[in-house]
Amino acid sequence: MRTEAAFSSDITALNELLAELFSQEQEFAPNSEAQPKGLLMIINNPDAGVVLLARRGEKIVGMVNILFTISTALGARVALLEDMIIASASRGEKIGTQLLTEAILLARSRGCKRITLLTDGANQSAQRFWAKQGFIVSSMIPMRISLE
Amino acid sequence: MRTEAAFSSDITALNELLAELFSQEQEFAPNSEAQPKGLLMIINNPDAGVVLLARRGEKIVGMVNILFTISTALGARVALLEDMIIASASRGEKIGTQLLTEAILLARSRGCKRITLLTDGANQSAQRFWAKQGFIVSSMIPMRISLE
Repeated sequence: MRTEAAFSSDITALNELLAELFSQEQEFAPNSEAQPKGLLMIINNPDAGVVLLARRGEKIVGMVNILFTISTALGARVALLEDMIIASASRGEKIGTQLLTEAILLARSRGCKRITLLTDGANQSAQRFWAKQGFIVSSMIPMRISLE
Repeated sequence: MRTEAAFSSDITALNELLAELFSQEQEFAPNSEAQPKGLLMIINNPDAGVVLLARRGEKIVGMVNILFTISTALGARVALLEDMIIASASRGEKIGTQLLTEAILLARSRGCKRITLLTDGANQSAQRFWAKQGFIVSSMIPMRISLE
């Protein structure tokens, strides 16, 4: 298994993984037109972030996005971690842990002093995974407004 | 009162507002070295975001940051809203509502399809303010890891 930054040629496979992810999440629904657009925006804009994928042979078995932003509290670049998913056929093999380790190394090497993610409030197994990897629950509450 | 994008010459005044904000928030503490660095990173990088301020005469009476990132779920640019604070001497005059209206217009004009913020879990008056402005509580839970 190797991890590497995604290319535009990977988008079809990544789009399938995202469809799997968004059908599991409470607040999102798969959108096969929107997802490739978003992936391409990140892949074409290295200052915005990196789509990191786990590949075994020719097959993409997992993905995670690291998006860069800036914190005034830390006076530094920080990262958002989004869209982490391991293909259902490849779970239980610690691929998620390996991929996350690489994502954290990448964020650190790009000068990020913190990583924040939003995890599904109803998905306790995801929360346990993140906690095991060193992520701490924040007491802050996310609120959103749609501009569509 | 007028709203405008901050310049580097505004950083000293903005730094005082941030110190006030971070002394109120549960998860943050003021850091007078970090804050100006973070502000300058945003001001110098229009693709990363905009520091929007409310000015009355020469005096800065409020601020809010709009930071740009990308959503694969929406296939579009989205915004994070951070660091919104009105100077204590200028509260109760609807400056926050005006500033937020401008921030939403700005995000929309820059192609953002959603704005997400994290608000203090203990600050019910802030939660009421955001709800009144159209923000909806997400069921997702923020988790963070420090890379310092």
